[in-house]
Amino acid sequence: MQFLSDNAAAVHPRVWQAMRDADAPQPPYDGDALSQGLDTAFSELFGRPCAVLWAASGTAANCLALATLVPPHGGVICHRAAHIEHHEGGAPAFFTHGAKLILGEGDGAKLTPDEIGRIRGGIARDVHEVQPHAVSITQTSELGCTYSPAEIAGIAASAREHGLKLHVDGARFANAVAFLGCTPWEACQGADTLAFGCIKNGGMSAEALVLFDPELADLARLRRKRAGHLQSKGRFLAAQLLAMVEGELWLENARAANAAARELAGAAGGRLLYPVEANEVFLALSPAERTALRAQGFAFYDWGEDAARLVTAWNADPGHVRSLAEAIGGL
Amino acid sequence: MQFLSDNAAAVHPRVWQAMRDADAPQPPYDGDALSQGLDTAFSELFGRPCAVLWAASGTAANCLALATLVPPHGGVICHRAAHIEHHEGGAPAFFTHGAKLILGEGDGAKLTPDEIGRIRGGIARDVHEVQPHAVSITQTSELGCTYSPAEIAGIAASAREHGLKLHVDGARFANAVAFLGCTPWEACQGADTLAFGCIKNGGMSAEALVLFDPELADLARLRRKRAGHLQSKGRFLAAQLLAMVEGELWLENARAANAAARELAGAAGGRLLYPVEANEVFLALSPAERTALRAQGFAFYDWGEDAARLVTAWNADPGHVRSLAEAIGGL
Amino acid sequence: MQFLSDNAAAVHPRVWQAMRDADAPQPPYDGDALSQGLDTAFSELFGRPCAVLWAASGTAANCLALATLVPPHGGVICHRAAHIEHHEGGAPAFFTHGAKLILGEGDGAKLTPDEIGRIRGGIARDVHEVQPHAVSITQTSELGCTYSPAEIAGIAASAREHGLKLHVDGARFANAVAFLGCTPWEACQGADTLAFGCIKNGGMSAEALVLFDPELADLARLRRKRAGHLQSKGRFLAAQLLAMVEGELWLENARAANAAARELAGAAGGRLLYPVEANEVFLALSPAERTALRAQGFAFYDWGEDAARLVTAWNADPGHVRSLAEAIGGL
Amino acid sequence: MQFLSDNAAAVHPRVWQAMRDADAPQPPYDGDALSQGLDTAFSELFGRPCAVLWAASGTAANCLALATLVPPHGGVICHRAAHIEHHEGGAPAFFTHGAKLILGEGDGAKLTPDEIGRIRGGIARDVHEVQPHAVSITQTSELGCTYSPAEIAGIAASAREHGLKLHVDGARFANAVAFLGCTPWEACQGADTLAFGCIKNGGMSAEALVLFDPELADLARLRRKRAGHLQSKGRFLAAQLLAMVEGELWLENARAANAAARELAGAAGGRLLYPVEANEVFLALSPAERTALRAQGFAFYDWGEDAARLVTAWNADPGHVRSLAEAIGGL
Repeated sequence: MQFLSDNAAAVHPRVWQAMRDADAPQPPYDGDALSQGLDTAFSELFGRPCAVLWAASGTAANCLALATLVPPHGGVICHRAAHIEHHEGGAPAFFTHGAKLILGEGDGAKLTPDEIGRIRGGIARDVHEVQPHAVSITQTSELGCTYSPAEIAGIAASAREHGLKLHVDGARFANAVAFLGCTPWEACQGADTLAFGCIKNGGMSAEALVLFDPELADLARLRRKRAGHLQSKGRFLAAQLLAMVEGELWLENARAANAAARELAGAAGGRLLYPVEANEVFLALSPAERTALRAQGFAFYDWGEDAARLVTAWNADPGHVRSLAEAIGGL
Repeated sequence: MQFLSDNAAAVHPRVWQAMRDADAPQPPYDGDALSQGLDTAFSELFGRPCAVLWAASGTAANCLALATLVPPHGGVICHRAAHIEHHEGGAPAFFTHGAKLILGEGDGAKLTPDEIGRIRGGIARDVHEVQPHAVSITQTSELGCTYSPAEIAGIAASAREHGLKLHVDGARFANAVAFLGCTPWEACQGADTLAFGCIKNGGMSAEALVLFDPELADLARLRRKRAGHLQSKGRFLAAQLLAMVEGELWLENARAANAAARELAGAAGGRLLYPVEANEVFLALSPAERTALRAQGFAFYDWGEDAARLVTAWNADPGHVRSLAEAIGGL
Repeated sequence: MQFLSDNAAAVHPRVWQAMRDADAPQPPYDGDALSQGLDTAFSELFGRPCAVLWAASGTAANCLALATLVPPHGGVICHRAAHIEHHEGGAPAFFTHGAKLILGEGDGAKLTPDEIGRIRGGIARDVHEVQPHAVSITQTSELGCTYSPAEIAGIAASAREHGLKLHVDGARFANAVAFLGCTPWEACQGADTLAFGCIKNGGMSAEALVLFDPELADLARLRRKRAGHLQSKGRFLAAQLLAMVEGELWLENARAANAAARELAGAAGGRLLYPVEANEVFLALSPAERTALRAQGFAFYDWGEDAARLVTAWNADPGHVRSLAEAIGGL
Repeated sequence: MQFLSDNAAAVHPRVWQAMRDADAPQPPYDGDALSQGLDTAFSELFGRPCAVLWAASGTAANCLALATLVPPHGGVICHRAAHIEHHEGGAPAFFTHGAKLILGEGDGAKLTPDEIGRIRGGIARDVHEVQPHAVSITQTSELGCTYSPAEIAGIAASAREHGLKLHVDGARFANAVAFLGCTPWEACQGADTLAFGCIKNGGMSAEALVLFDPELADLARLRRKRAGHLQSKGRFLAAQLLAMVEGELWLENARAANAAARELAGAAGGRLLYPVEANEVFLALSPAERTALRAQGFAFYDWGEDAARLVTAWNADPGHVRSLAEAIGGL
């Protein structure tokens, strides 16, 4: 009974079908009809013009976005717990040629407008200190929390005030939108770029790099090729993304994952470390309790010494979820 | 009737099947059983220990290999017509942090031991000139020619003599082995690294980076992650590679593509610009002749002013090939 | 009356003289007799074989050292207050091609063996987190504190235990040795590389990059050229370094600067924020007090809201120092 | 009797004097009055607004300029014999983060407008080929030839037509202006950036990076710091540059060097390989003839198998020059 991560979950049948349907002769790279249709599909989804590139990983999507916004000598303000800081193997520095991640604090792994202002204010405007050029936030955050539309708007206004671009790491963006019940744009309003996640949400190998300033697309395309991410049979990546956004499959999958997490949260009571606003549940669990749960067949990661992280996927087995909820309740 | 390229051809049914079979729960990244099985499968194929990483493009496989062999301040000797020089959008410089491509000459887009010696000899051993650290050759070459086992051995000996590593860009390695009728190792003997191509040969999105010095694998894995190429559902890339090498599918596909090219070559007579040793045919064709062929429904790329390039894929339609051969003969 | 910094102080007459003496015809770059003599001069100074390269700034010397020790995908453990983190404009990332600075804590801007162990222990040994390859400490630290020989030995042992190289940023190394009364080697024992500062200590434009593993010198020389730091009239940089170490000018100058700082510290009483172990004095001073001192003609930098930093140079005017000490005492 | 190079020649007395005069207390880095005065001094020299930064080597000045004009994924068109291609140890790739040097041909190591057009026309406008962003020429060229004002204007027009910026490597710019008898601007008209050389012309350690678009200066200053080239006692570099341009010392020195070369050329007759338009003389000389000259005490470099390069400096000894001219005439 798997609660380790959503990142290796099965591929949704409609994604498979879309990939099979894409196997007709087409121009290579992103010259096929599916890749060419991404801009339109996502512009409709977000209600505004945007340009969209597929990329084979969230790391690539995030880092191509950052490299588009930030020069090598610049910096990116992000939360100390950000995925780009901790778990991308130095990829942001690679893609940006050495731009600096400038770390901030905030509850739930979320930045605030005040924190952005505090950081910017603490950096002398000279050549000796690295100057920030962008803010990067994660929606859903690394601790399973979401930025409300009002919070996003505040972040965007703060970034704009300080002359900074805004990137949103949306590896679990669908889960945030499903939780917030807002439009996709409201969940990232004011962003310049968004890494729109699909792989954790029933996709196979495609994330969408969304550029809300379509003029940035040429630069991003050059950099994608230069990073070896321009696949010659790109139609199979485009097919995944289109399958996701058509018929709201992305929201349907995210709602299922969120519901499973909510069920676990409901059984957790005072053990909850953070509000459960998406598909991740962080629980206070002693080593003995974790051992007990694992003995019952549940797989999950430790979270430090006295806690655990449970992640639910789009295809969470209802029976497994119920069993785990009961097991937690019975501790 | 497509003769544009093999790089966007359909995916082979056995590759599709292997991917579907891979969609069971597995650890993420390259922790799955399929990815873990690559070293063994390719070690058997090459008859010697090697470590194998999947990568989503030939550009990525080539450039990860070069970055493993060459420091940022070093250089790579390659042919002036090499794909890494001309058609990878600067990716070699990106992955290696600025290593220099040092260009040589040779018939059929092939380097020779003498040319390697001439280049090395012309570079002063000081800090003012970039020092070469590796040689990179392409098997099959960019002009559809192959290095014989003896030629490869000579290149490898020359590289070794000059203290240089050897990388083989094998985007169409299968076509070379199919043509040469030798073992896979004989077609790249002495290489330190090989980008073993699958995508042009019936795969979807996986090339194999083969490291004949398995001790290099840790470094290559770090760099793969850092380049955003460590996909979380890597099992689907491993599945493609294993499907290719099992039961000699890779050779079967390459033989079919080569046979189609040979049929075209047989009809071309004196128009042939280079020996046809794989699945590419370069023909002298005037603009009027090209127009005439296209009017009959054949799609292909111009090659300069008075020539054309025809590429056959693993699934070349025999009827189309016959028609094109006849059309060429009838010009 | 200047107490702003030592970094723009006058050039010592013996340094001037050495430069004038160097203006005879010589081979370019580092082929001149002076540059060729650096290894010997510093090997004697440190009592062990070392290779020495001149560089035109502390930033260049530090970053060339780090690039020699750490690959692009690696990391460097340093103190949160380290100069390489805060005041080198992103140069470490530039020279290393994106290696990460991994920040630690410690009193007086000094790392401890325990802190190194804690940081190393907190980083999973996988490709997702950047792996540290080196430790960098600053002797004298950014807060004017020194590592005792025993502390240095502990740091070096901890680095070695964790498989990490050790770099010492010695912009004010002379001040530390003068304070500690130890040998130069005792003040950096176990280091792999040292940026031995001269510019703040009466030099003009030369720092010494000392490599205690002389085999690293070839790599450092290649990288120095590639960074535009191989000056064609390098003899003038070598002349400065040789003038410094001959006849202990470096220690003589450092003792003078330290003595001036000690005199100020003696007048400061409870205002002292950190022990004064070199030529920097950090004092609690209210805005009104700072205004009062400046009104008397003393120039110095604020240090946050309620403090100031006073720096004394090799040529500190005894009258000015006495006046400032009295002014502080009289607040 | 030295004719090896001008790059290690003595420092002119007026440069020495200016440096000594600069040794009064001043703000660090480029905050001193001398550094602050460079923009005005060079704006007067060129008759148009420009921003000027000092740098410690021609390599640094050239590469900072290129990094200011060209993004990491872009390219620079230059002559195959360009110093940036051959003798800067890969520094252009380092400073630009991997931009590509795209090589052209031309007599006397000079590019032509046609060659620029030919190169640009041969590069497909897609993401697979590196797109040029700038042209770099060398005035005086690597073969001692100069671009006339009309030639420069043609190059600049061609660059502009193709949307390319123009950089001029002016390591021996003074020699070109002295030969051409034109204004400084006429010798580089249309350039965006110029590396104005002083070190080979009687300076010690300062070249001027001239930005004819002063808005680029902030970017160049950030990158200079990041490359470790912001020296804290920058006043000594500014002093050298100001001494050079005051009272036309730069032209006076260049005229002396050119005159010496002209005297040698006059004796060389049919041996001359290239027109002598500055301070370099390339002569057909057999190994035996070279041996004979060296036996008479003349030092110079070989230039391939059957030629030699003679370089005259600002302080060429008239007696030595006369002796060499006579010795050549007497061969």
